[in-house]
Amino acid sequence: MGFLARASAIAALLVSSLGLLSSPGAAADPLASWNEGPAKAAIQAFVKRVSDPGSTDFVAPAQRIAVFDNDGTLWVEQPMYTQLAFALDRVRELAPQHPEWRGTPILRAAIEGDLKTLAAAGAEGLAELVMVTHAGMTPAAFHKIVTDWLATAEHPRFKRKYTDLVYQPMLELLAYLRANGFTTYIVSGGGIEFMRPWTEKVYGILPAQVVGSSIKTKFEMVDGTPTLVRLPAVNFIDDGAGKPVGINQHIGQRPIAAFGNSDGDLEMLQWTTAGAGARFGLIVHHTDAAREYAYDRTSSFGHLDTALDAAAAQNWTVVDMKADWKTIFPPAP
Amino acid sequence: MGFLARASAIAALLVSSLGLLSSPGAAADPLASWNEGPAKAAIQAFVKRVSDPGSTDFVAPAQRIAVFDNDGTLWVEQPMYTQLAFALDRVRELAPQHPEWRGTPILRAAIEGDLKTLAAAGAEGLAELVMVTHAGMTPAAFHKIVTDWLATAEHPRFKRKYTDLVYQPMLELLAYLRANGFTTYIVSGGGIEFMRPWTEKVYGILPAQVVGSSIKTKFEMVDGTPTLVRLPAVNFIDDGAGKPVGINQHIGQRPIAAFGNSDGDLEMLQWTTAGAGARFGLIVHHTDAAREYAYDRTSSFGHLDTALDAAAAQNWTVVDMKADWKTIFPPAP
Repeated sequence: MGFLARASAIAALLVSSLGLLSSPGAAADPLASWNEGPAKAAIQAFVKRVSDPGSTDFVAPAQRIAVFDNDGTLWVEQPMYTQLAFALDRVRELAPQHPEWRGTPILRAAIEGDLKTLAAAGAEGLAELVMVTHAGMTPAAFHKIVTDWLATAEHPRFKRKYTDLVYQPMLELLAYLRANGFTTYIVSGGGIEFMRPWTEKVYGILPAQVVGSSIKTKFEMVDGTPTLVRLPAVNFIDDGAGKPVGINQHIGQRPIAAFGNSDGDLEMLQWTTAGAGARFGLIVHHTDAAREYAYDRTSSFGHLDTALDAAAAQNWTVVDMKADWKTIFPPAP
Repeated sequence: MGFLARASAIAALLVSSLGLLSSPGAAADPLASWNEGPAKAAIQAFVKRVSDPGSTDFVAPAQRIAVFDNDGTLWVEQPMYTQLAFALDRVRELAPQHPEWRGTPILRAAIEGDLKTLAAAGAEGLAELVMVTHAGMTPAAFHKIVTDWLATAEHPRFKRKYTDLVYQPMLELLAYLRANGFTTYIVSGGGIEFMRPWTEKVYGILPAQVVGSSIKTKFEMVDGTPTLVRLPAVNFIDDGAGKPVGINQHIGQRPIAAFGNSDGDLEMLQWTTAGAGARFGLIVHHTDAAREYAYDRTSSFGHLDTALDAAAAQNWTVVDMKADWKTIFPPAP
């Protein structure tokens, strides 16, 4: 190829690359699984308001913080929280070595799969179940237990791995926010060390960007090796009024956007949206019994009552899962 | 200009830009305030080992985590911790409204500036002083109190603002690590909300990347406004064996490099350097009475004894401040 031919080939390449980059019509919709409607429009309008340097509501990237609940907001929480399914499997696996567990009502209910008793127990009632299944090992050992369980456990209805039962529209929303300079955090009532082993791979959220409930941990030298051990004692419950406290402790800034689905997210949404400047609150309303589940005011898991009323009063966006989402889960591999 | 002339001018520009980018000799030394010597060489060798994709010790950027103590490692801690100077100023300012404080030995010592009693009290003895000066307001109000104090308070010897008395070589080290894909965290015994108001501006470290000691915080609705209040109760002491616990809680991964200067950093250095793969531990040894301070085994603040012995045994790098640092502080504005 002569000089001119080469130059013109390079020019053609440049033009076509620039064309690809600068033609918005050609780009795929980053929220492709969201139907056009008020929820999608509200998200897009908010992101434009805070990220457009010409906007009076512009927010610098370091303050563009978005917080997401996990159970029921990013992944399935029915027929029970995934972490509870994990604890039940663990307790049944360990029970043969612990005949004394049958003397404790909540542990007996767990061993026998008595879901009614478990659902009625509430967070405090389940504490003992968490302690016997989540404590007594190093964080690294617990990480492996969680990873191994998630690699094989299947959801009873969908017959898929739990980490496949994440909401495709929310995965797109996480990526869309990050592409627009946001930092995305999980702020969940779930265990911080139950989530961290897999959130980077599944959601693109690093361990340091996961806030959750925790048990106490102790540092000690064991035969000359520095060791952390998980203790059977509650450290922090990151739910309800605990969520703004967890946000303050871990993030140290008030978020500008919060995404939840239950009354446990109420205070996080209140705290986030009460700040000055542009703010965004969103509730995922589970309205799709055919493709997922339909539940709200009377559900044990993901109870949504006060926060649904607050959403109307506070002008938070409510996602109607059935109407707003084209698909629920990523396609099966 | 004709076509060929323009093309050749563009080519010349391209060549000169590429030349600038690829000629390492032309770039300024990112560690310019470090004298050539074993400490600087060890830092450079470690960074190359973990960030060169061809290295057998390559570490992916998401795992390239470096943790820094603050007092005595990034800024001055003599003649007393800056936060203690802050608490003493606060207690003197508030004392007229609290005549009852003179009935408490540690508060009387604070009001009277009895440093000997204060230094002997230790962290637990100082708890009451922290409570009366650090609690009872919102995090936002405390943020303003800290910011206002730092804007005017002066170091008694150097007659400069405390935020000017940061170590220039360590500022360069923070920037050098970040330029090589590291995320830099503070892990300090100091108060997390005493540091967060200024660490981004001074060190380039975001609030979420600051780990420290904390008091408890409560969420409540006050006249319809979601409010956080700082309570007079210890939440977490991020010192000594608390540092690996704080790292695990906030970062959720074991760092690959740790930087400290006192026995309070021993466990953080042990925990960091005991991990698999390339690891780096460094102790800043204060050896320069003329330009800063010289202290170690007998000092009340920044006591360095066991960790200095451990550095020799564990092959951690020890910075001899007098020999290794060309300058101590950034130039006065």
